[in-house]
Amino acid sequence: MASSTPSPGYSITLRVAVNSAAGSTTDLASAVAATGAAVTALDIVESSHDAIVVDVTCNTVNEAHADQITEVINARPGMTVRKVSDRTFLLHLGGKLSVEPKVPLKNRDDLSRAYTPGVARVCLAIHKNPEDARRLTIKRNTVAVVTDGTAVLGLGDIGPAAALPVMEGKAALFKQFAGVDAWPVCLDTTDTEEIISIVKALAPVYGGVNLEDISAPRCFEIERRLRDELDIPVFHDDQHGTAIVVLAALINALRVVDKSISDVKIVVSGVGAAGHAIIQLLQAQGAAHIVAVARAGAIHRGETYTDEHRTWIAEHTNEEGFSGTLEEALVGADVFIGVSGPNLFGADEVATMAPGAIVLALANPDPEVHPTEAAKHAAVVATGRSDFPNQINNVLAFPGLFRGLLDAAAADITTAMLVAAAEAIANCVSAEELNPSYIVPSVFDARVAPAVAEAVAGQAGRS
Amino acid sequence: MASSTPSPGYSITLRVAVNSAAGSTTDLASAVAATGAAVTALDIVESSHDAIVVDVTCNTVNEAHADQITEVINARPGMTVRKVSDRTFLLHLGGKLSVEPKVPLKNRDDLSRAYTPGVARVCLAIHKNPEDARRLTIKRNTVAVVTDGTAVLGLGDIGPAAALPVMEGKAALFKQFAGVDAWPVCLDTTDTEEIISIVKALAPVYGGVNLEDISAPRCFEIERRLRDELDIPVFHDDQHGTAIVVLAALINALRVVDKSISDVKIVVSGVGAAGHAIIQLLQAQGAAHIVAVARAGAIHRGETYTDEHRTWIAEHTNEEGFSGTLEEALVGADVFIGVSGPNLFGADEVATMAPGAIVLALANPDPEVHPTEAAKHAAVVATGRSDFPNQINNVLAFPGLFRGLLDAAAADITTAMLVAAAEAIANCVSAEELNPSYIVPSVFDARVAPAVAEAVAGQAGRS
Repeated sequence: MASSTPSPGYSITLRVAVNSAAGSTTDLASAVAATGAAVTALDIVESSHDAIVVDVTCNTVNEAHADQITEVINARPGMTVRKVSDRTFLLHLGGKLSVEPKVPLKNRDDLSRAYTPGVARVCLAIHKNPEDARRLTIKRNTVAVVTDGTAVLGLGDIGPAAALPVMEGKAALFKQFAGVDAWPVCLDTTDTEEIISIVKALAPVYGGVNLEDISAPRCFEIERRLRDELDIPVFHDDQHGTAIVVLAALINALRVVDKSISDVKIVVSGVGAAGHAIIQLLQAQGAAHIVAVARAGAIHRGETYTDEHRTWIAEHTNEEGFSGTLEEALVGADVFIGVSGPNLFGADEVATMAPGAIVLALANPDPEVHPTEAAKHAAVVATGRSDFPNQINNVLAFPGLFRGLLDAAAADITTAMLVAAAEAIANCVSAEELNPSYIVPSVFDARVAPAVAEAVAGQAGRS
Repeated sequence: MASSTPSPGYSITLRVAVNSAAGSTTDLASAVAATGAAVTALDIVESSHDAIVVDVTCNTVNEAHADQITEVINARPGMTVRKVSDRTFLLHLGGKLSVEPKVPLKNRDDLSRAYTPGVARVCLAIHKNPEDARRLTIKRNTVAVVTDGTAVLGLGDIGPAAALPVMEGKAALFKQFAGVDAWPVCLDTTDTEEIISIVKALAPVYGGVNLEDISAPRCFEIERRLRDELDIPVFHDDQHGTAIVVLAALINALRVVDKSISDVKIVVSGVGAAGHAIIQLLQAQGAAHIVAVARAGAIHRGETYTDEHRTWIAEHTNEEGFSGTLEEALVGADVFIGVSGPNLFGADEVATMAPGAIVLALANPDPEVHPTEAAKHAAVVATGRSDFPNQINNVLAFPGLFRGLLDAAAADITTAMLVAAAEAIANCVSAEELNPSYIVPSVFDARVAPAVAEAVAGQAGRS
């Protein structure tokens, strides 16, 4: 038996020959289900008097589980696994993006307009008036998804080639959710200055830059410098995308428990890229009592820190100079926000929080506290996981955000835009819908991206 | 009256209100045609008792001509131009490419496979076995179209932003003709070393690099270094794409006049990027008597040249040490190949060539000799122009070439592949079809790209 939950990320299809004297498709499905797999489809491929061939599709826990299912089936008399297909790998075959012409190229007239000689006039128009690039080229709707592959998902430094499937997926989400053309830029260098100069050199084609999965502290410098030196918006999704969705979730969670952001005591676990951005955005929204906790304990004014981000946090949070542990910080806290590591505490520690506690535990794939444990004492619980309520997922933010930036031809991203995006996400959950298990809209809620885009473009127009 | 030919590259649509008492659509069409424009469509937009509104679409010569047409119509009693739309600009609005997901992202299962958590396994597979990138990512089918915008069409150094419409068009042609996903990389730097290091850093996403419209001599160094330092094929279309199509045309032209490439005397006008590549490829195919002519006259061993390309040409061509002018070189020549400038000579000079002369005059938009003049004495004439027979157009080569390179997962481009591509193009014209006005297939001949791809992939398999 597998110890964890089967996932569609580990979906496999087994092609099995079943001797009809020996068994049936029902026996087969039972045998697979008995291993802990979730059978999602049974398709008969061939049928004859004495045998049938069946495709069994099921979600499994991991590769070992898939191997185990094959062994279990082969061990049954009259059943033979002919082939195992991994549906996730099948989906990725040949890559997940295509580049399509938006113009016809069927005859000479088409060619004369889209390419030579007609294109020359379009080139000259842009040469004369560079602003026309946003009207007459893909710059208008195109975002670079830039990584060096040093901090990919939970996988760490796997390099630019291995990071490409994630960036392709991200680009696919940009199109699916907001009609944004996004292109993966996976850089075979980890040198901060080189990354900065490359992204600057690439900028003519793009209307925005989404930095992704670049390890700290280089990501801070790269983002800061590119924001200063480019005239298109630069966004580090791991920081600001997460911060937007956390703020959205917090806005609605506070509505559920009827507390005000300026009153609550907020404990943030994790002072990396995401933690830092979350703290800044919460403060922009009025949060006044934040304690940030690193592995060594609370960040406080009494300590000297070597890196500028902890120094900033020490100067701008924890007004009471608290210097204890995470467990101690949680006592009496109204809100816990975790962007750190797995399984840091349990139900007992949640019980020490203030009544109506809010727990946003985002460590992936295993949260700081298991959502079931947290729910024993907290009023509202959210995680990054899709198999529990209230999934905090950046896809709620980045597509609509860039849609709004491109529509407004924005040159910069302001904190006011990030706050507007968070409020737009929160407001996609109506007062009637709002409850402890529904503080953020579904990632498939088609209203979210347009609402975020409109809010962001509105702010861009104001600035 | 306009002095040159109307072109679909200058196609406009005029919306004209016509007072029905004053005239008719026939009068309107005649008025437009009388200016020298070619009317291609008349569409009634509105009609009432006393007036109609008509969209007149016509090919014009240039912008002044379009203005002239507007004036002519407005001068006629009862006719008013309400609006002039430039169809070429309309076609380019918003850019010419889109990035499309190839995978469904409609529900949670899709997301789990295409993005997190399923994508992590795909990333790890590539991390473990880098060759899997060609199986599981867009690298398999994707080419970078790289420029710095320094030598765009006939426009020169217009910069990377203004070059983007050309690169988008090129990418559209890649997809249309060979199913290749191509992406524009317009670099905001002209520094040779920086361009080299940027393209190397971008390489994880791409299965090939097409260098485009980069000025000489930097293009030589950039191509050479990238070929040495990258494990994907690097192609400079302005050189090798042109050379392939010239060789294809020459192969068939020699069939028409029944001469052998090893016997003929070939004069090449122009010793830039294209001239150099053409000479090398013709020699690979057996050409033994080539004289290259620059502005100052024939390149020959008796002279010392400061640049390495002229030095190479002096050492490898012109075995008789001829040192005269282009006119003198043409006397008795079997073949003229021009990749230089407009209107260098006329019919009289062509008359001095050997019987059965072949003239491939590729300067754009105005050839070295006007095709009508050349045809007075030459047996076969080809130019880069689409309004005369035998258009030498790189689109015959690059899509199929890269299709073959990607299919074979080739790491390099060899001269044998370039020759194979040229022969494949030439052989798309059958013995029955071959005649002096049809030495190269139409750019819209759908057989060309697959034939080139197969020939190139075959050579790749051999090497």
